[in-house]
Amino acid sequence: MPQGQPKPVALIVGAGDYIGAAIAKRFAVGGFQVCLGRRNGDKLAPLVEEIEAAGGTAHPFGFDARQEAETEALFAKIENDIGALDVVIFNVGGNVYFPILETTSRVFRKVWEMATFAGFLSGREAAKYMVPRRRGAIFFTGATASLRGGVGFAAFAAGKFGLRALAQSMARELGPDNIHVAHLVIDAGVDTEWVRQRIVESDGEDALSNLVPGQLIDPASIGEAYWQLYQQPRDCWTHELDVRPYIEKW
Amino acid sequence: MPQGQPKPVALIVGAGDYIGAAIAKRFAVGGFQVCLGRRNGDKLAPLVEEIEAAGGTAHPFGFDARQEAETEALFAKIENDIGALDVVIFNVGGNVYFPILETTSRVFRKVWEMATFAGFLSGREAAKYMVPRRRGAIFFTGATASLRGGVGFAAFAAGKFGLRALAQSMARELGPDNIHVAHLVIDAGVDTEWVRQRIVESDGEDALSNLVPGQLIDPASIGEAYWQLYQQPRDCWTHELDVRPYIEKW
Amino acid sequence: MPQGQPKPVALIVGAGDYIGAAIAKRFAVGGFQVCLGRRNGDKLAPLVEEIEAAGGTAHPFGFDARQEAETEALFAKIENDIGALDVVIFNVGGNVYFPILETTSRVFRKVWEMATFAGFLSGREAAKYMVPRRRGAIFFTGATASLRGGVGFAAFAAGKFGLRALAQSMARELGPDNIHVAHLVIDAGVDTEWVRQRIVESDGEDALSNLVPGQLIDPASIGEAYWQLYQQPRDCWTHELDVRPYIEKW
Amino acid sequence: MPQGQPKPVALIVGAGDYIGAAIAKRFAVGGFQVCLGRRNGDKLAPLVEEIEAAGGTAHPFGFDARQEAETEALFAKIENDIGALDVVIFNVGGNVYFPILETTSRVFRKVWEMATFAGFLSGREAAKYMVPRRRGAIFFTGATASLRGGVGFAAFAAGKFGLRALAQSMARELGPDNIHVAHLVIDAGVDTEWVRQRIVESDGEDALSNLVPGQLIDPASIGEAYWQLYQQPRDCWTHELDVRPYIEKW
Repeated sequence: MPQGQPKPVALIVGAGDYIGAAIAKRFAVGGFQVCLGRRNGDKLAPLVEEIEAAGGTAHPFGFDARQEAETEALFAKIENDIGALDVVIFNVGGNVYFPILETTSRVFRKVWEMATFAGFLSGREAAKYMVPRRRGAIFFTGATASLRGGVGFAAFAAGKFGLRALAQSMARELGPDNIHVAHLVIDAGVDTEWVRQRIVESDGEDALSNLVPGQLIDPASIGEAYWQLYQQPRDCWTHELDVRPYIEKW
Repeated sequence: MPQGQPKPVALIVGAGDYIGAAIAKRFAVGGFQVCLGRRNGDKLAPLVEEIEAAGGTAHPFGFDARQEAETEALFAKIENDIGALDVVIFNVGGNVYFPILETTSRVFRKVWEMATFAGFLSGREAAKYMVPRRRGAIFFTGATASLRGGVGFAAFAAGKFGLRALAQSMARELGPDNIHVAHLVIDAGVDTEWVRQRIVESDGEDALSNLVPGQLIDPASIGEAYWQLYQQPRDCWTHELDVRPYIEKW
Repeated sequence: MPQGQPKPVALIVGAGDYIGAAIAKRFAVGGFQVCLGRRNGDKLAPLVEEIEAAGGTAHPFGFDARQEAETEALFAKIENDIGALDVVIFNVGGNVYFPILETTSRVFRKVWEMATFAGFLSGREAAKYMVPRRRGAIFFTGATASLRGGVGFAAFAAGKFGLRALAQSMARELGPDNIHVAHLVIDAGVDTEWVRQRIVESDGEDALSNLVPGQLIDPASIGEAYWQLYQQPRDCWTHELDVRPYIEKW
Repeated sequence: MPQGQPKPVALIVGAGDYIGAAIAKRFAVGGFQVCLGRRNGDKLAPLVEEIEAAGGTAHPFGFDARQEAETEALFAKIENDIGALDVVIFNVGGNVYFPILETTSRVFRKVWEMATFAGFLSGREAAKYMVPRRRGAIFFTGATASLRGGVGFAAFAAGKFGLRALAQSMARELGPDNIHVAHLVIDAGVDTEWVRQRIVESDGEDALSNLVPGQLIDPASIGEAYWQLYQQPRDCWTHELDVRPYIEKW
């Protein structure tokens, strides 16, 4: 980072304890001021502390990414108070499993609001500020269900397919405006509390101790994958890439 | 149709003037009682007349396919008053074109409600009645935007990708219950008033008279495609197929 | 078939005992003279007898579909002696399973010659006669490995992917010439001697008697799928469709 | 690179003047000894000089990647004389354009030999040495035609689809052996003499001077993309990614 120059600004929408936090830490290490957005902003304190202890800069924001007014206000506030956004990474989840007959309309709608609609709101707001500057990057986090509607995943896959469509449309439209839009397909379990619980549920307590090293993706590796994407020169941008552990069956 | 046996029952959700009407006519000719569902039920009168004049049976229903209670009520009424549903074909559209910065959250949500959410409601209700009988077919109408997020189609593609995910999940889950779930990708313009208007808008009035025969899909051909799907024996079901005119560039 | 009019002509390349034979029988029942091409022409006698006993017309030809001169000669002979080809269906297999380190270059090449190169030769010869007439259909048989390179299927998938690429290129180029090019993806086991042997090999003798009805595709259903494809009007052609039994996991 | 430790070894199969050379230079800068394989080994002298002038290490090899014996001999020689291969990047082309009726069997076969068969030979030889060591990376260069069979590209797409199938099969089989197999889809023109000539052919001499900066991919950017892939930790490997310039229509 050259002296005297302001740090570039990143926003992580969905800065949860694992993937989102790891992305934030990677960009903070890379010299970014990281803005952290999450429903319950109070939970961001430890992450802010960790980033700052490592010499980085972090700004926590509590907001609901599914609410248009809150999203607009957050982007406006960041652009006004902190600086021009260079990169926005949308990382809101919504993974649920229900047989079709047990999928309520409430669940189906809520998953869409998290997985697709919130992505649209953040993506569009990012574009609103970036297009006039003709510079920026907007990245979306996908999953296995982005490409495959599996049994029991009607709601989740519908949400993730929708996000992928959004990412494609935005990439095709905004590329010529020098905005890099990418979609990262995480095709495996990431090492989070939630994934570990599901492993215990399906395979028993012992399953955790039997995990082979590298069987789950380290959240830090997702942070690195996004960092790599951000390094790509504009003559050679990736729109979509998959990631999974070496040992994953697929 | 054997003597004395009740006619099988089909429901077309989104029985509009073109594609939906053509599907209904095809199944009526094939010996089905066709239930016609459409937001404005009054507009169904000419179609009912046409089907009945040809010796068929048609039941018109005004209902909003985006409303859960209305959808549940419609399925219950048909099952109760008319008979067990053999096939449900979801044909609600939602095609809009907007650059991402001009895509309002209202449009994005409404398109999803039509393209994805209504499909979920009809699909789930269909499954609710068919699964216990272990028999039935549920077909969904897709479009080019089901597979490709093009410039200006963020909202429409997000809705259509979502519908495709739903169809895949349902097919994988319900196939073993002997329910045939399929997704028809219409990868071209169908000969409708709406498509003809868009041709005039983009290429001028003369463009219509310059249309080559077979350049637009005849709605009746879509009806035939669904009829073919319904004829498939259960050891050889298609989940997804594309259709387009011989002359289409793709 | 109107009186006095010559019967249309179909050619099945790879008219083996199961799928190819079933396709031939379906087109014979549909009023076609069926030309049967197979490496060992002597084995075609029972099929010819069966078709003729049912009132159909069949012409057996022994030829190696991987040999350009033999393929050219066969097409010329049929066009000259029997009539103008209306439909050519390429159904040559090549399924092998080898870990990559045990895949010899001989196997890799032979599978390609059967799965891709022979398809190219037959497809091109068909186009050669059909394009000037601006009429015809060319169909290719695909498999699960057409879309997925699974473990142990490097050779087979490479061959089947290649055939799919050929089919796509030909469809895009020849559609405007009124030639219908389609690719049928058989995503399951078909009920053949070979598949039954593999089931025994992997799951034991009892596995056969435990087969659920409809678990394997009846070859006749593949014949029907091709017949349906051939019935499509040219404003609504399918290029690619998958087929599998209702009970298949996918 | 730690003192005293031997440099890791990379092999570029198809080390042509542009993409292959750029990959080689990137890995040389990264501390690799780069082995350069190319049909006409004499043409490698300038590249070797350039790499060595920059302080790198390069070993030129003339060999025909379509010949099994030559490929086996090359791998054996490198493993014996230079060191254990850490990464092999297959970059042999084969782009041709012919309408289907003008595609000779000779062209169809030669393109396959370059695009698919040579990839199989190099991929299998790489696996042969890497699997026992349970370490290594094997990367394949794809193109737009890897995913789409366009008009006039039957031969090229058949070859590139085949290579993609091979890469998928190898990735699924060899991942658990700790071998990273990836497929890079270059979905645009790279700035090579050949691409510039095609631009002149199709759009005239002026087209070159009208090229927007970043309209063609800089070969160095492809080198960087492969370098990034090689940096990925094994819990987060990418199998497939696309690259194109920001300005590309797709």
